Amino acid sequence: MPVVITKVQRPDAATVDGLAQLGVATVHEAQGRAGLAHQRLRPIYAGARLAGTAVTVSVPPGDNWMMHVAIEQLQPGDVLVVAPTSDCTDGYFGDLLATSAQARGCRGLVIDAGVRDVRDLTQMKFPVWSRAIHAQGTVKETLGSVNVSVVCAGVLVRPGDVVVADDDGVCVVAREQAASVLANGLEREAREAEKRERLARGELGLDIYGMRERLTAKGLRYV
Amino acid sequence: MPVVITKVQRPDAATVDGLAQLGVATVHEAQGRAGLAHQRLRPIYAGARLAGTAVTVSVPPGDNWMMHVAIEQLQPGDVLVVAPTSDCTDGYFGDLLATSAQARGCRGLVIDAGVRDVRDLTQMKFPVWSRAIHAQGTVKETLGSVNVSVVCAGVLVRPGDVVVADDDGVCVVAREQAASVLANGLEREAREAEKRERLARGELGLDIYGMRERLTAKGLRYV
Amino acid sequence: MPVVITKVQRPDAATVDGLAQLGVATVHEAQGRAGLAHQRLRPIYAGARLAGTAVTVSVPPGDNWMMHVAIEQLQPGDVLVVAPTSDCTDGYFGDLLATSAQARGCRGLVIDAGVRDVRDLTQMKFPVWSRAIHAQGTVKETLGSVNVSVVCAGVLVRPGDVVVADDDGVCVVAREQAASVLANGLEREAREAEKRERLARGELGLDIYGMRERLTAKGLRYV
Amino acid sequence: MPVVITKVQRPDAATVDGLAQLGVATVHEAQGRAGLAHQRLRPIYAGARLAGTAVTVSVPPGDNWMMHVAIEQLQPGDVLVVAPTSDCTDGYFGDLLATSAQARGCRGLVIDAGVRDVRDLTQMKFPVWSRAIHAQGTVKETLGSVNVSVVCAGVLVRPGDVVVADDDGVCVVAREQAASVLANGLEREAREAEKRERLARGELGLDIYGMRERLTAKGLRYV
Amino acid sequence: MPVVITKVQRPDAATVDGLAQLGVATVHEAQGRAGLAHQRLRPIYAGARLAGTAVTVSVPPGDNWMMHVAIEQLQPGDVLVVAPTSDCTDGYFGDLLATSAQARGCRGLVIDAGVRDVRDLTQMKFPVWSRAIHAQGTVKETLGSVNVSVVCAGVLVRPGDVVVADDDGVCVVAREQAASVLANGLEREAREAEKRERLARGELGLDIYGMRERLTAKGLRYV
Amino acid sequence: MPVVITKVQRPDAATVDGLAQLGVATVHEAQGRAGLAHQRLRPIYAGARLAGTAVTVSVPPGDNWMMHVAIEQLQPGDVLVVAPTSDCTDGYFGDLLATSAQARGCRGLVIDAGVRDVRDLTQMKFPVWSRAIHAQGTVKETLGSVNVSVVCAGVLVRPGDVVVADDDGVCVVAREQAASVLANGLEREAREAEKRERLARGELGLDIYGMRERLTAKGLRYV
Repeated sequence: MPVVITKVQRPDAATVDGLAQLGVATVHEAQGRAGLAHQRLRPIYAGARLAGTAVTVSVPPGDNWMMHVAIEQLQPGDVLVVAPTSDCTDGYFGDLLATSAQARGCRGLVIDAGVRDVRDLTQMKFPVWSRAIHAQGTVKETLGSVNVSVVCAGVLVRPGDVVVADDDGVCVVAREQAASVLANGLEREAREAEKRERLARGELGLDIYGMRERLTAKGLRYV
Repeated sequence: MPVVITKVQRPDAATVDGLAQLGVATVHEAQGRAGLAHQRLRPIYAGARLAGTAVTVSVPPGDNWMMHVAIEQLQPGDVLVVAPTSDCTDGYFGDLLATSAQARGCRGLVIDAGVRDVRDLTQMKFPVWSRAIHAQGTVKETLGSVNVSVVCAGVLVRPGDVVVADDDGVCVVAREQAASVLANGLEREAREAEKRERLARGELGLDIYGMRERLTAKGLRYV
Repeated sequence: MPVVITKVQRPDAATVDGLAQLGVATVHEAQGRAGLAHQRLRPIYAGARLAGTAVTVSVPPGDNWMMHVAIEQLQPGDVLVVAPTSDCTDGYFGDLLATSAQARGCRGLVIDAGVRDVRDLTQMKFPVWSRAIHAQGTVKETLGSVNVSVVCAGVLVRPGDVVVADDDGVCVVAREQAASVLANGLEREAREAEKRERLARGELGLDIYGMRERLTAKGLRYV
Repeated sequence: MPVVITKVQRPDAATVDGLAQLGVATVHEAQGRAGLAHQRLRPIYAGARLAGTAVTVSVPPGDNWMMHVAIEQLQPGDVLVVAPTSDCTDGYFGDLLATSAQARGCRGLVIDAGVRDVRDLTQMKFPVWSRAIHAQGTVKETLGSVNVSVVCAGVLVRPGDVVVADDDGVCVVAREQAASVLANGLEREAREAEKRERLARGELGLDIYGMRERLTAKGLRYV
Repeated sequence: MPVVITKVQRPDAATVDGLAQLGVATVHEAQGRAGLAHQRLRPIYAGARLAGTAVTVSVPPGDNWMMHVAIEQLQPGDVLVVAPTSDCTDGYFGDLLATSAQARGCRGLVIDAGVRDVRDLTQMKFPVWSRAIHAQGTVKETLGSVNVSVVCAGVLVRPGDVVVADDDGVCVVAREQAASVLANGLEREAREAEKRERLARGELGLDIYGMRERLTAKGLRYV
Repeated sequence: MPVVITKVQRPDAATVDGLAQLGVATVHEAQGRAGLAHQRLRPIYAGARLAGTAVTVSVPPGDNWMMHVAIEQLQPGDVLVVAPTSDCTDGYFGDLLATSAQARGCRGLVIDAGVRDVRDLTQMKFPVWSRAIHAQGTVKETLGSVNVSVVCAGVLVRPGDVVVADDDGVCVVAREQAASVLANGLEREAREAEKRERLARGELGLDIYGMRERLTAKGLRYV
């Protein structure tokens, strides 16, 4: 069953970059509050923000052999998405693999496991969202698969799906919906800009959103 | 039962600001090692330090409607304290609510749940102590209460109590005891300054605190 | 049974400092992927990197009395290694103890429990790897031991062993093996420098490490 | 500050016993979904079900001295409620304390920490709801308080409040509301009996509760 | 987006029942170590063993309205599979819903959240695999979906897939592969029976599986 | 470095069996509150109680190859003690391995990872203390070691040490101290029998242990 799928359909680059601009919280809302990875995935340094197309990797626990296989499949603009087949926090990825991935145009790594050499990765500006920082080494004995559908931190990711990541976490957009989610998100952002201004001036959300009547109808009492 | 209490007794501002200067560890000691929230509450960025008067919010899981109601109750110098009625890490609060809260003079947020837009909140210098960073959206369907007593991260908070927060976590001071805790804390700080100097010169705590005799009496052996 | 061992064999300073240069991930690999503490130990601020000789402390839960005893045993170049006898996240250590430890030449603290005053510790540049940041105070009622073997975050540490710590976590090297681990690590680092360069130029690990044949033999299919 | 309050107001026994019959889930609903302890409290054996009046104990981590003090305050029908002042899973309670508590008419123990001798406790039919089963011993060095208000597993408990516990967990009823919660609960139970019968015959909740119209109004589509 | 899919393709009953006989560990192996839910799903009582066809439910946190909608979609032999859209341990399901589900021929419940009334469910012999036992009530305010693909405890489940559950946990078999997995599993079971007998007589796995040579080749030393 | 130590010093059988009679809580106290494994190790069924001599196994994550190697080293009266080199909850052990271990006189398994086939193991009366129940399969690709010192669930275990386990957890006694710990434990048990009787008659621990004076001296007030 171990397999490497070498053909991946990727959405166009402008759409991907547009989603990066929106950020995780907006993209997540713009697609109906779906696609968010579990909050255990955290960035190794603050301030990184990206979107890219997923090259997915299914790996055995404690074995990072397939990372080397996956790197060959990377194209500029891709993001590595790594899911172990059972809970594991070992350090699958460090500065050598990052050097190699970066050389192929990879934008970053999302992994439901551990990474190491985080000081080097930070200096290289290679962003990682992981479940753990862990120096624990791995072996290279057992196969996995590249570019199959995986569940990573609770969210389904297919090769070529768009991965958006920032300080708020990681959100996945199905490649077929990338364009429409971008459109929704831009609209949403426009609406929010106007509200932000009114809120900053001291207007209340209760009034802007017209909530008072419904609150009363539901039975809220002020005493 | 959903209710908004609109009258809150707040301690005087000088006392609150004095407690901010002391910081969490000293305040916690000064009131007899009580009032500390669970350490799962962590600041979204390092270096923030505040004290403020609590406006409390009891919210259902996954529903942030009451946040809008609570914001209307804020006065300058307040801190929002939010406790979900069952374990929840959803992102109840983001940059729009922060804009609104800040416009009303709110100093920060303490929440035993999640927040999002942390990059924006950091840029706005709106400090948050939360259990999680999570883009997960919420709904606005179910009522909760504002300015009732809540248990937030294991500690009882009543409206008007003083909330002190810094890199060490969050500590709550009952509003009636704010003045005496401040006095104790200042005294404690004075005593520590002198000890810090002696320790820095190389004197030992064993000698400064006169511990050697009691250690021997308890049976400590040196070999 | 509470005891303080006052004589500790320490490896020579040059070896210890060499291990600091290598960092945790390399040291861990250089001694056969052994000696790593559990990843729950995290630095209180980013960028610290050290190696030192362990002065070990076995402490009861919620009681930091023995910290004062341990400080007297510190020599320049030492690192305090603290293990509670059962799970505890209380704040055993703050700015006063750090002042005292620093005055005696202590390089930092590794503790499978909590610390407080992290803002002060950060300003003092006193590095700490801990399981929690927690203002919770402790008492001084029950004895423990200093410079006995302890299990700290799952790893055995004997007094005088070398503790290496950086952003990747904490690794312990038995004092008798410090020199040979350093030699292995330096060799390893040299080999990696050459590979890093080749990877940066776009060569693949699959080719550099000659993995393709073995992958095929194991049954990997490309489709 | 360590204190033992010797006078406790207890609700009448019939009310307490009535609440035991209702069980945790019904009591929790009957008081508006409030008062539930965190689900980390689990029974040490299946099938136990009780209600009793709380004798509360605030204990330091790893120190069970106050348990002995608390036992003297027990009256027949009481339940011990124990809350450590910081996270602790040590075994505060075993077969000797249970023998003593049982001799005084105590109905069981609720503790946000650990217990041991669970085989003996099971044979004695002394029910315990705890956070952990842990043989870890404790010391007797530091005072705490008996019959003060405590937060136990996230819920406020005052001495004399009613503690209801069964396989579903632990729920606390304020002593002043015990009678009205019992009345609500009995009503609720009566209503549920009729519904249970209709559901068992195959009628749908959608029809019994008249939900179809509201589901459609909210936008649910069947395809 | 909330939707109820009313047509579900179910594999034939004999296949499903055959998978139940094999049990979770064998089914998991027979399909290449895939399809296992996270081990946080545990049975509420020991000894239950089932297989059934999935009726899936995507629910908001703290809201069990869709459970009533899902029950109407149940056919004899089905299993309810419930996934909240964000982490939640509330008690979505109790004895009334179980009565209703059982009346429609439902075999059990798999839920990545909490259940309550576990004493009643145990007496009714309605098996549940859940993440928590929790009396915490829910509301009925927000829609979700029925019979859409969900990720439940980390595993993808589509309506009509086969859910196998026993004391070892929960495993999901894609409906198209049910027959071939059953065939593999039966073969595997036959092979194991013969090995079990040899092992019981004292033969070693090292010899039965012919491992000695490969161990030596990998470098294992006996001293 | 992978190695199998074939010579193990085991304490005499009568001592081991005596420790089994005492149980975990008493043994733990009798050796000065040391040697207890973390409470995450729980029995797969209630009521088992054993002591045996440790055959230790250090295993890679997700790889149970060494279990087969270890079984050959078992002698009647031994207990398998398994520690993965990094956090892992995979199911390393099931009914086939148990059949083989039982055929060699092995009394049970202590593993800081997962097991499966727990229904079969329960029927075979093969007791296991584990961190998880998990059907997740493992591979057989990477070596580990047998009968080296390991840290298992936070406690150091050397081959031949005595492992005591019951419903309270797991405690390890160094083989050299087994006899003296047994003697202490028997004495302790005798003392407790007399106290248990007095407590059962209603005498208070406060009086039996003479605690009142010391409580007053420490400052306890009754109000």
